[in-house]
Amino acid sequence: MTARVLIRDLAAHPDGPVSVAGWVETVRDQKKVQFVVLRDESGAVQLVNPRTVAEDGTVVADEPATTISGLSQGSFVRATGELKHDERVKLGGIEIKLSSLTVETAAIPETPIAADSGIDKRMDWRFLDLREPKNNLIFRVQTTFEHALRQYWVENGFVEIHTPKLMASASESRAELFELDYFETTAYLAQSPQIFKQMAQAAGFGRVFEIGPAFRADPSFTSRHATEFTSIDTELSWIDSHEDVMKVHEELLVAGFTAVKEKHGEEIEALFGVEVTVPATPFPRIPLAEAKRIVAERGYEVPRDDDDMDPEGERQISAYVKETYGHEFVFLTDYASTIRPYYHMRHEDDDSITKSYDLIFNGVEISTGAQREHRVDIIEKQAREKGLSVEELEDVLAFFRYGVPPHGGFGMGLARVLMLMLHLSNLRETTYLFRGPTRLTP
Amino acid sequence: MTARVLIRDLAAHPDGPVSVAGWVETVRDQKKVQFVVLRDESGAVQLVNPRTVAEDGTVVADEPATTISGLSQGSFVRATGELKHDERVKLGGIEIKLSSLTVETAAIPETPIAADSGIDKRMDWRFLDLREPKNNLIFRVQTTFEHALRQYWVENGFVEIHTPKLMASASESRAELFELDYFETTAYLAQSPQIFKQMAQAAGFGRVFEIGPAFRADPSFTSRHATEFTSIDTELSWIDSHEDVMKVHEELLVAGFTAVKEKHGEEIEALFGVEVTVPATPFPRIPLAEAKRIVAERGYEVPRDDDDMDPEGERQISAYVKETYGHEFVFLTDYASTIRPYYHMRHEDDDSITKSYDLIFNGVEISTGAQREHRVDIIEKQAREKGLSVEELEDVLAFFRYGVPPHGGFGMGLARVLMLMLHLSNLRETTYLFRGPTRLTP
Repeated sequence: MTARVLIRDLAAHPDGPVSVAGWVETVRDQKKVQFVVLRDESGAVQLVNPRTVAEDGTVVADEPATTISGLSQGSFVRATGELKHDERVKLGGIEIKLSSLTVETAAIPETPIAADSGIDKRMDWRFLDLREPKNNLIFRVQTTFEHALRQYWVENGFVEIHTPKLMASASESRAELFELDYFETTAYLAQSPQIFKQMAQAAGFGRVFEIGPAFRADPSFTSRHATEFTSIDTELSWIDSHEDVMKVHEELLVAGFTAVKEKHGEEIEALFGVEVTVPATPFPRIPLAEAKRIVAERGYEVPRDDDDMDPEGERQISAYVKETYGHEFVFLTDYASTIRPYYHMRHEDDDSITKSYDLIFNGVEISTGAQREHRVDIIEKQAREKGLSVEELEDVLAFFRYGVPPHGGFGMGLARVLMLMLHLSNLRETTYLFRGPTRLTP
Repeated sequence: MTARVLIRDLAAHPDGPVSVAGWVETVRDQKKVQFVVLRDESGAVQLVNPRTVAEDGTVVADEPATTISGLSQGSFVRATGELKHDERVKLGGIEIKLSSLTVETAAIPETPIAADSGIDKRMDWRFLDLREPKNNLIFRVQTTFEHALRQYWVENGFVEIHTPKLMASASESRAELFELDYFETTAYLAQSPQIFKQMAQAAGFGRVFEIGPAFRADPSFTSRHATEFTSIDTELSWIDSHEDVMKVHEELLVAGFTAVKEKHGEEIEALFGVEVTVPATPFPRIPLAEAKRIVAERGYEVPRDDDDMDPEGERQISAYVKETYGHEFVFLTDYASTIRPYYHMRHEDDDSITKSYDLIFNGVEISTGAQREHRVDIIEKQAREKGLSVEELEDVLAFFRYGVPPHGGFGMGLARVLMLMLHLSNLRETTYLFRGPTRLTP
């Protein structure tokens, strides 16, 4: 491995010889001295090269001066020189006086995007866009967040599963389904791991988790939708109600936010102007019917014929919760049976509402959770009520006939959580390489 | 949450009232006493129910006796009773004298698979097959293994990425590619995250990892192939050669095997008769040409026209390494340029061999790694040599023109590692829900 020091670690490094490596952010090629700002995944540092002046006063074309004069922005280089701590240097109070500079790959000189490029243009050149320190930070935050979730799961006896993304039939809905030729038959891309994580309950796994891709042939172009997204899923047995799912859900989020705040809190504040708040538990819980009354009292009538919320209603109830409880999260519970899938369990004493919830974070829905119905006769009844064919569902219902414990879980969109955590307005920002109806590259 | 004790924890639990929950493994419904073996995700325990006998000597049809008489195997139940430690009880030296038994879901009485069912039959009923303690253990081992890898990555500054599985063009090969209608165009399922993890190097991420699905429309039915598999991938910048990749690779495996041995070593020995060995570093490294000579000396001539190994050759060299070095792993290095993809870097002093390797574990290839060529002019030259169209590759090559540091990495099949670790003969055993040319369910 090339002996290089991460730029972040230079501040604590003693004055003297040092090697760094990264890409060229800017070059100031002045007559008597040259400056290069070099960036790596951890930060930026100024390289300085005083030109050699001959006795007759002319500037000598020696190395690394000639190489620096030919440097294009974005080129990857290795640099060796003398590190010097000097508080007069604006960039971190350090600079490196160059002794050698090697170009590993020269970038073509035209830079196709600028700081003010539109999001679609930036997505075209995502591999350059991601070099921005803010964008780099997003994925380090993602790493920390996911690792904290997995730490919680592992410590609490959850088993990691990798469910198939190729399916013989649709488990969620026939709409928005990608299909493909699969040898002699047709396969579908999984819209969620729903049925497979329930199967793990039938298999006696007890508690499971998965972070993996999910696919929706969703033709919409909103800031919150993608055709491929990373879904955070968990499912657990022997729950008494959706309350048990919400409890695990909030403990997971507390673990994730705590880790992010500890590791990246200062940097997030510096780059995004956002103070990460670890949410207090329990999160507020509001039954949906009550949430709609509260929103109506604030002067917003949800313009829907069914009993559901809409995005503006979610923003309104979130604002109410923030004002009233100072909380960024709210569980909306007890959605009407009419607007929930057939596999959500309904309340024993009121068949018209389900043991389910949506989790709203800073005004946007990030997750749906529920206790699932595990009794096959009731599943069949509920499926028929929804106009579904029990015969077509047989493939996915078969395992219920061999015994399933009471269970529930949730699915949560990773990019949405990160978008709302960092107060960004579009999940294209928090998706490594976004996929939408007109976006399949890079 | 239902207050239940995991069966594993009963041994340390004091005598007295206790609740457990799980599925019915066996019922012995005798005249004077009933026995139920109850299993959960952590173990099995015997429930006992002495029948009530009336003064006239007849057995009373009371509860839970009547429920027990009607129990079908596989039903999920909750049980409450008095725990008693009694070393005469074969199953763990404990039993629970029942006070109540509640059936949560009754299984239909026919059990479609038995201990000696063939693998394809077992796959048909995978949700029941997975209830077997050995199968349950496999996925707990998987959880521990993956978590240890991620712990290594996170501690060493790697960034977690989720690369898209929907692509506009093939990155690896036009063969064995799943394609699907994607709105107005065609998309392909990613055969590996190769190009996307290289893109992260251009983006200056430094070091990345991903565990996610990969897809191959591979029509073969061997014990080592699947159309969808979980790929463990990592890629890192500023390496000097493939040697740096191998070093990270072996450190990752040591971390994974150490964690598995510590957490599950005894159980693996008990259920699989396998002693998990933490591999010593460095792993043996043998250039491929030398490996072929060694294999030939053992009397096996690899029946191939190209310079590649074949599965029997891999078994032979693995046996040689085991005999000679007592090691289960071997890196075969320096594959001929003719049999490696265009993006593998070649040796400076010998263009005919690549800076690449395969990792063989207990006789089977589990991974391919390499330093990648990062200089776009050489990539184009190598692609043309392979008869590829540089124009068609432009989509995937574009980012190289804007600068990429030297880098390399590997991809490794998760199910293969687990299969070989546990001395199993088929990766259907170590895949949660296997997908093959004729297998899309359950």
